[in-house]
Amino acid sequence: MADNPTRDTPRIAASGLTQCIAAAYRAAGIAAAEAQRAAELMAASDLSGADGHGVFRLPQYIRRIKAGGLNTAPDIRVIRGAKASALVDGDNGLGSLVVSRAVEEAIVLAREYGVGWVGVRRGNHAGAAAVYAAMPLMHDMIGLYFAVGNANHLPPWGGIDMLLSTNPIAIAVPALDEPPLILDMATTVAAYGKVKVAAQQGKAMPEGWMIDREGRPLTDPNRADDGFLLPIGGYKGAALALMFGLLAGTLNGAANGADVVDFNNDDTTPTNTGQAICVIDIEAFGEPVAFKRQVDAVIRQLHGSALLPGFDQIRLPGEDRHRRIAEREANGVPIPPALLAALDRLAAELAIPKLFG
Amino acid sequence: MADNPTRDTPRIAASGLTQCIAAAYRAAGIAAAEAQRAAELMAASDLSGADGHGVFRLPQYIRRIKAGGLNTAPDIRVIRGAKASALVDGDNGLGSLVVSRAVEEAIVLAREYGVGWVGVRRGNHAGAAAVYAAMPLMHDMIGLYFAVGNANHLPPWGGIDMLLSTNPIAIAVPALDEPPLILDMATTVAAYGKVKVAAQQGKAMPEGWMIDREGRPLTDPNRADDGFLLPIGGYKGAALALMFGLLAGTLNGAANGADVVDFNNDDTTPTNTGQAICVIDIEAFGEPVAFKRQVDAVIRQLHGSALLPGFDQIRLPGEDRHRRIAEREANGVPIPPALLAALDRLAAELAIPKLFG
Repeated sequence: MADNPTRDTPRIAASGLTQCIAAAYRAAGIAAAEAQRAAELMAASDLSGADGHGVFRLPQYIRRIKAGGLNTAPDIRVIRGAKASALVDGDNGLGSLVVSRAVEEAIVLAREYGVGWVGVRRGNHAGAAAVYAAMPLMHDMIGLYFAVGNANHLPPWGGIDMLLSTNPIAIAVPALDEPPLILDMATTVAAYGKVKVAAQQGKAMPEGWMIDREGRPLTDPNRADDGFLLPIGGYKGAALALMFGLLAGTLNGAANGADVVDFNNDDTTPTNTGQAICVIDIEAFGEPVAFKRQVDAVIRQLHGSALLPGFDQIRLPGEDRHRRIAEREANGVPIPPALLAALDRLAAELAIPKLFG
Repeated sequence: MADNPTRDTPRIAASGLTQCIAAAYRAAGIAAAEAQRAAELMAASDLSGADGHGVFRLPQYIRRIKAGGLNTAPDIRVIRGAKASALVDGDNGLGSLVVSRAVEEAIVLAREYGVGWVGVRRGNHAGAAAVYAAMPLMHDMIGLYFAVGNANHLPPWGGIDMLLSTNPIAIAVPALDEPPLILDMATTVAAYGKVKVAAQQGKAMPEGWMIDREGRPLTDPNRADDGFLLPIGGYKGAALALMFGLLAGTLNGAANGADVVDFNNDDTTPTNTGQAICVIDIEAFGEPVAFKRQVDAVIRQLHGSALLPGFDQIRLPGEDRHRRIAEREANGVPIPPALLAALDRLAAELAIPKLFG
């Protein structure tokens, strides 16, 4: 995974990576400004270490565009059903562009009403959840982001029919002098992107990520189709996936349950992906600096805890991400050999320059 | 736990239980109307099977009132910081009265703005989270409820200092012909109320609920002070507890982290308990009946799943609760012997009639 590029893994600056992604999007028929914006959003996943959600997905996105399963010139519309909430119809455009539009709208609503809730329908896979949950931070706002995953890898608790997705939850809360706290978690023990990365890297999965249809541990990522991901906390994680799926999908008229299109195996059916973003303006509840100072205080209390045997530090949500962004901004984004080969093939197909050209 | 009263366990009708609780509250100095309302809210926990959150807590609440740690005549105020959000200052009144006031406000806001977010500060322990998350259902609205627990039983992940609480999450979504989906979960494998009930019933806890400070399993509920609850999904559950604690506590100027008062061991310090309720008006996103029909469809898909070996049915969040409410409305709320003895002692202290008088 992201955590383990070797020292020899080739690296590319985020700006170069963004240029490469934008060139691919343009070659696939997306207008220059949208291609640039979508490339920046994709590279933001890579920069933050969410490697299963960044350029790793580019060949699949382009394949879908070429197959006619994604609209390269969508009419993304904001439908206002009430004052502080909205629905964004993505017209089957790139997920990143649709969701970022929804987040922008939610920020405007939160500034005016204290809270804004914007749902998305007819979108697509949008990349790392944290990228979107974190957007309100610079406005002294809190972001909560929920999404329906783009393939069902999870049965209801006690079942074996895969009817639920890994439905991620992301929450971002600003601090003052400390890095912001940013949770970005699948409701499963492992996100499916991690399974794909493990397969690409030829690594076994730890027990506890997946089981097969008999309930036995499944550790070979190439056998992922023979089983399903395990939810966190047993029935609790499956319930979280269900409830946030209803909020991010069903409420918006987007796919959920049996309607979810497996975008790994189907490049043509519109996915009707749903997401939801809730933005809270801190100022509606009190003085933002005082709040952020109090968040700092909580962070420092937690870091000050004595350690459980076997641990050498307390890691809070978003801290690894924060460190990784700094490290990758300085040293570039690592591109493992298998990914590089896939991107080289993509560049050849699209007749654009290679990443390391 | 709630699930396992024996056939011989004495039962009392919810109306009789409510009368008894109201009488106790009145005897403790709470005005009749507020006592009645708070009693109904407490009995609602019992009726739904959340036995660790209902009348089981009454002796503790009364003890706190007698010790001067809870305001029997609070001035509960709604502070409006923005149009679609509000902050409720509970003036250290009964948690149930403060939170139900916040939910009512959030419903009004959601009707006007599509979404309403109301935070609570200076409240108290309010009982089962599902009671409050479910209140918007009858208005064709969705409820999300978050609370800071009233004692820290959880360290940060990798630590041993108990700086986080079990911070419950509840989400209620209406269906059409099916029972509503209602998730009510602690961010720990077990809620602390379950530990207290196990101790009262003299039962061992399963492994996985708690560990001691060396990381060893802890199964004796009477030794609960020697360890702490385990979060669901390891670091993920601890992160959920942290993030929702910031939303329910810190954002509202309520206690979180080291400021949380252990209300099991301290009857006098105001707890400054924080909660948050977010209500979404379904109508802002589409036609409510169509939405609820779609929720029915998802529920039926999930119930239709083939079963994993070892399971005999798919149970969705809220279904046990729904069945239990029907069963207890018909047959009464079971009062186990140890609880009955505690309530008899309370009745004697307050000079009110016994539950089975």
